[in-house]
Amino acid sequence: MAHGAGGKASRKLVEGLFVPLLGGEPRALADAAQVAISGTPLAITTDSFVVKPLRFPGGSIGELAVNGTMNDLAVSGATGKALVATFVLEEGLPTAVLEAEVRAMAAAAQKAGVAIVGGDTKVVEHGKADKMYVSTTGIGEPMPGIRVSAASVHPGDKVILSGPIGDHGITILLARGELDLEADLRSDTRCVLPLVQALARAAGPGIHWMRDPTRGGVATSLNELTRDCGLSISIFEEQIPVRDEVRGACELLGLDPLHIANEGQFLAVVAPEYADLAMNALALVEGGLEARIVGEVREQPASAVLVTTRYGGSRMIDMLVGDPLPRIC
Amino acid sequence: MAHGAGGKASRKLVEGLFVPLLGGEPRALADAAQVAISGTPLAITTDSFVVKPLRFPGGSIGELAVNGTMNDLAVSGATGKALVATFVLEEGLPTAVLEAEVRAMAAAAQKAGVAIVGGDTKVVEHGKADKMYVSTTGIGEPMPGIRVSAASVHPGDKVILSGPIGDHGITILLARGELDLEADLRSDTRCVLPLVQALARAAGPGIHWMRDPTRGGVATSLNELTRDCGLSISIFEEQIPVRDEVRGACELLGLDPLHIANEGQFLAVVAPEYADLAMNALALVEGGLEARIVGEVREQPASAVLVTTRYGGSRMIDMLVGDPLPRIC
Repeated sequence: MAHGAGGKASRKLVEGLFVPLLGGEPRALADAAQVAISGTPLAITTDSFVVKPLRFPGGSIGELAVNGTMNDLAVSGATGKALVATFVLEEGLPTAVLEAEVRAMAAAAQKAGVAIVGGDTKVVEHGKADKMYVSTTGIGEPMPGIRVSAASVHPGDKVILSGPIGDHGITILLARGELDLEADLRSDTRCVLPLVQALARAAGPGIHWMRDPTRGGVATSLNELTRDCGLSISIFEEQIPVRDEVRGACELLGLDPLHIANEGQFLAVVAPEYADLAMNALALVEGGLEARIVGEVREQPASAVLVTTRYGGSRMIDMLVGDPLPRIC
Repeated sequence: MAHGAGGKASRKLVEGLFVPLLGGEPRALADAAQVAISGTPLAITTDSFVVKPLRFPGGSIGELAVNGTMNDLAVSGATGKALVATFVLEEGLPTAVLEAEVRAMAAAAQKAGVAIVGGDTKVVEHGKADKMYVSTTGIGEPMPGIRVSAASVHPGDKVILSGPIGDHGITILLARGELDLEADLRSDTRCVLPLVQALARAAGPGIHWMRDPTRGGVATSLNELTRDCGLSISIFEEQIPVRDEVRGACELLGLDPLHIANEGQFLAVVAPEYADLAMNALALVEGGLEARIVGEVREQPASAVLVTTRYGGSRMIDMLVGDPLPRIC
């Protein structure tokens, strides 16, 4: 299960098996790939969704499948223009369940301004899938003037986080009803494209790197960045927005909110001289008021993420190890 | 299960649920969608693969996932340039099984001349998937001068079939070992792009329509065409290449080879004045010698496929109904 959790084991699987066998020179792994068709550059990304339960407060698998793919494109600096989807359905799945998810996809796509242009459906025997799995692939147009890569990140850059973390992961956990816990919490699932577009307009040349911290959370995304760029990232714990419900559930469960999955947040590393412009631009967009500067890039300790606690101490935080929360997306 | 079989129920699902909800004007359903990114036209297609068993004589799920997607692009008149893949893996799947499929994908992609540029992996609990499911999405460059659509098909056009039918479906059926049958048969899985390219070079302006007859077989593909164009297609049964092993298995099982899935064949409808050029071009490409002109387009009976038997009689053949062969791809 850990190999699917988006943390260390996932990265090992990708770096140890997929990348060497599927070719391609070693390179920083990004949310979307850049390719050229007839000389026109575009971004492409794909994801499968196996979230359990299918519906949860704030969202559902179909909605997640659209927003997750749009978000991977957005943080790669691309505007999603077309999506395709595949469904693996378990025999006997009520049509109403499928219809609800197709409607959720349609609504999310309309809201995000993307067209769903094709798809495929397979049915497997009862017991051979868990109701339904969805895969979506998106292609996007590069935003003019936006070039993000770990190699562009420099000491002194600021780390922006778009909003409170952990809502999605803890919502899913509670929605399963396996824990004797209740909280008034909803998944943060949303399309972050409007936020990224505002950031790009205001601070385009200063945006060095972006990522949506889904599986493995903020800690895993930032650790991936430090490994790719060889620098250090210092996070100020008290600046990181975490709702009380998420903090409470994490304390009870022995989890760190920095490792919990998000579905509607993104991280951006921006040049210091663009940080204010970026924050002002985000504040003007719906859903952007909770963005915070949560850290900065430093030279040392190389390839590590350091969290400065509210009491002035500091601790290293690693990528997610193991899988405390399987099938979160 | 019938909803996943590629026949009547599948079409009903797509036309009754996906198309109305996901928007888009009513249109002929094609193997790939045409979209424009930054003004550049491209083709995109997606498919999930749930074939059982994972490996079978002549191929495997990974290889099928690459070729199937390349073929959908090819018959849409596009050259596949980039693929992405997602994997849903069952907890406990031996790494060697996954590695074998990733190697199969790499080999198929290399042979087909396409790059695998990205992917995603999810793991679900033991029993919640059947070893592994793969989804692939391909984007392709339109072949210059090729425009295929049901609306371009005219009475008098010739129907070309690229080779023997039913090899894939019957191979899978036998590989499951549930029947007390054995035959020296291999799946026909291959990338048809070189054949389609040769056809395009030789007879480009005369190619009116193409399709790869996978789930539901030749009969389903041609019925879809007649419904989309309102014309009739006459097939000459004795011209349709069917291996003895396939014919024998079909007779024993009460199946029609025209309903059996193929993974390395395509149908092309070409203007009569281009038919000889097309056949000559195919004969010069590896694997193209078994192509045959198997029928022609007529005015009547509207929206129907008629099979002329070797004894001069004729019968209507409909789309696949039900699912005699689940999980064939």
